[in-house]
Amino acid sequence: MARPRPVEYADATPEVRAVFDDIKAARKIPDVTNFWKYLASDPTLLKQTWEGQKVVMAPGAVDRLTKEIIYLAVSVTNGCAYGIASHTVLARKAGMTDAMLGEIMAVIGFANQTNRFVDGFRVPIDPEFDV
Amino acid sequence: MARPRPVEYADATPEVRAVFDDIKAARKIPDVTNFWKYLASDPTLLKQTWEGQKVVMAPGAVDRLTKEIIYLAVSVTNGCAYGIASHTVLARKAGMTDAMLGEIMAVIGFANQTNRFVDGFRVPIDPEFDV
Amino acid sequence: MARPRPVEYADATPEVRAVFDDIKAARKIPDVTNFWKYLASDPTLLKQTWEGQKVVMAPGAVDRLTKEIIYLAVSVTNGCAYGIASHTVLARKAGMTDAMLGEIMAVIGFANQTNRFVDGFRVPIDPEFDV
Amino acid sequence: MARPRPVEYADATPEVRAVFDDIKAARKIPDVTNFWKYLASDPTLLKQTWEGQKVVMAPGAVDRLTKEIIYLAVSVTNGCAYGIASHTVLARKAGMTDAMLGEIMAVIGFANQTNRFVDGFRVPIDPEFDV
Amino acid sequence: MARPRPVEYADATPEVRAVFDDIKAARKIPDVTNFWKYLASDPTLLKQTWEGQKVVMAPGAVDRLTKEIIYLAVSVTNGCAYGIASHTVLARKAGMTDAMLGEIMAVIGFANQTNRFVDGFRVPIDPEFDV
Amino acid sequence: MARPRPVEYADATPEVRAVFDDIKAARKIPDVTNFWKYLASDPTLLKQTWEGQKVVMAPGAVDRLTKEIIYLAVSVTNGCAYGIASHTVLARKAGMTDAMLGEIMAVIGFANQTNRFVDGFRVPIDPEFDV
Repeated sequence: MARPRPVEYADATPEVRAVFDDIKAARKIPDVTNFWKYLASDPTLLKQTWEGQKVVMAPGAVDRLTKEIIYLAVSVTNGCAYGIASHTVLARKAGMTDAMLGEIMAVIGFANQTNRFVDGFRVPIDPEFDV
Repeated sequence: MARPRPVEYADATPEVRAVFDDIKAARKIPDVTNFWKYLASDPTLLKQTWEGQKVVMAPGAVDRLTKEIIYLAVSVTNGCAYGIASHTVLARKAGMTDAMLGEIMAVIGFANQTNRFVDGFRVPIDPEFDV
Repeated sequence: MARPRPVEYADATPEVRAVFDDIKAARKIPDVTNFWKYLASDPTLLKQTWEGQKVVMAPGAVDRLTKEIIYLAVSVTNGCAYGIASHTVLARKAGMTDAMLGEIMAVIGFANQTNRFVDGFRVPIDPEFDV
Repeated sequence: MARPRPVEYADATPEVRAVFDDIKAARKIPDVTNFWKYLASDPTLLKQTWEGQKVVMAPGAVDRLTKEIIYLAVSVTNGCAYGIASHTVLARKAGMTDAMLGEIMAVIGFANQTNRFVDGFRVPIDPEFDV
Repeated sequence: MARPRPVEYADATPEVRAVFDDIKAARKIPDVTNFWKYLASDPTLLKQTWEGQKVVMAPGAVDRLTKEIIYLAVSVTNGCAYGIASHTVLARKAGMTDAMLGEIMAVIGFANQTNRFVDGFRVPIDPEFDV
Repeated sequence: MARPRPVEYADATPEVRAVFDDIKAARKIPDVTNFWKYLASDPTLLKQTWEGQKVVMAPGAVDRLTKEIIYLAVSVTNGCAYGIASHTVLARKAGMTDAMLGEIMAVIGFANQTNRFVDGFRVPIDPEFDV
């Protein structure tokens, strides 16, 4: 065996089950997704990541939909297939429509394009931006 | 000379001036920022990028503030100093508060962290996300 | 044909076979892995990469296990599936345990997260680090 | 004001001071570094990141020096100037020598090079690595 | 439904068909490739991207083959599987030979390697390059 | 001391001087650039990198100018300031004009933009590209 193996609920320790139960209750899903099953190979990492995401993704000054859109923008920029697939679905659950997805991709693509222009042309930061 | 030089309004061709005038009118600023002055070394690229950004960044199904936040998320993920500086300012102009910035950074950081977990643990995409 | 084709030992030139023989002897494996077969479409690149890796990956001031862990950290950060798969196996052969893999992923994820915080918050380098 | 401002100890809330005190005691330093001062603009993010790093960077199955080397490898791959500067210093404090730094950079560079070869040549994962 | 669905010619609006017809005529192909079918889920993005690529990829001061090679270099550096597959084929159509592909990959790999050396060793820009 | 220090010719070992002499003769320059001085802190890495670049950057099936353009495309995509500055100058020495630089940046930006579209829209590779 080389790659981590997913931990199923039936095989999980009480410590891992407690996190799984919390995820299932919070998300109202019958079983946790693969992300959590694989993280469970390191129970400390599982717990820390779940506690972290509860704080980070909770609606606050920024609403949940915008947070999912940010997640998607980062995942697309990193070319992370799992992040793109999962947060496309999660953003839709939070209210993203087809029309929004098209515009979101347009901005992600445009930002990646212009980021290279400023680096490539070595554009100095304007005083009004350097504040 | 090796790096592109910024094109100032006084030295610009009529073609470049027309774009600069449009930018200044749209943004209500007395002079264009460095990004546009450096792109002006290639008038076609300048015109295409400005026309593109008018379409891409216009509020539509997604509002302007969210678009600026996406831009910031991409720029931070790419480590692009100019993009980070400029779109931090532009997002604030569009309504981003200090509390929002803190939460936005938290999501950007968390997404970059978990993107690596899914790649590193080689997490397969769940059927419910692969739709 | 568009993508490079792997070069099998039976079809290889004497020049390529000499490198393949050296790899098989050094690694004590009956056949070289796909990485080397694809590089062999450019014999110069094959030879240079193999000679390079012998120097770079040999234990020296840094031991082999740590070098494999670095390789894994880079591959995860780049989202490179082949590099992740191969160096997870190679790191295990060099002594990486399940517990170590969990902690390694935790550090890789945390570093990717905090890299974005410092860029996004535009944190200046402290004098004690700028030495 | 656009970019986050660092929070100095004298101006910090009791909540932020408690984290700063913990950092200063753990690291045996008279003042926290800029990273923590900037994160303090979002006290929740500050606390979560500090608690996270205590868990993640603590020696366990992987020793502290190796964890600092992983951090450096990620920071170099991301081109993150602050991460490179700070973790070069922190890795040295944990025992990294000049000879080690040279070898570490050699592996980081080599891994980034070969990651591109496998993507560019579209090398399929061998059965012995796909486990 | 979560991911965008490709738009086939038979189901396309007149607006989308007009772009598809232009692509088919310009490329002398009986049907557009998947890239365009997926972009068509956002007709504005489709039109803008196709108009953009006509300008950007047209031979000018830089010939078409060199432009395809640049596209390939960017796609390999980003680890973008679709970009690598499509622009390997398109570069071959524009004249790239097997021998050229090997040398191109060698340069892409070498550049990614040395980019990390300069960041990791924190090499300052020489006066003769800072012009 | 934490960061590597550049090795000046006057302070170099005979082994390092031999490489420096070879670089100076090949490039017809009175002193080596910072890149080589910093690498010299690890003489093995210096020698290996110089020997590697002689092979990789020599004109062959691909001419020197195109190789410099690839280097620039990679450096811009990585956001590597030293690579951008140095290879902008080196590409100009190899024949890159202002008009070419504008078109090169346009392609680099466009490729980075469309790489995100294909990842974000999850575009499957067409049969005609998967060869």
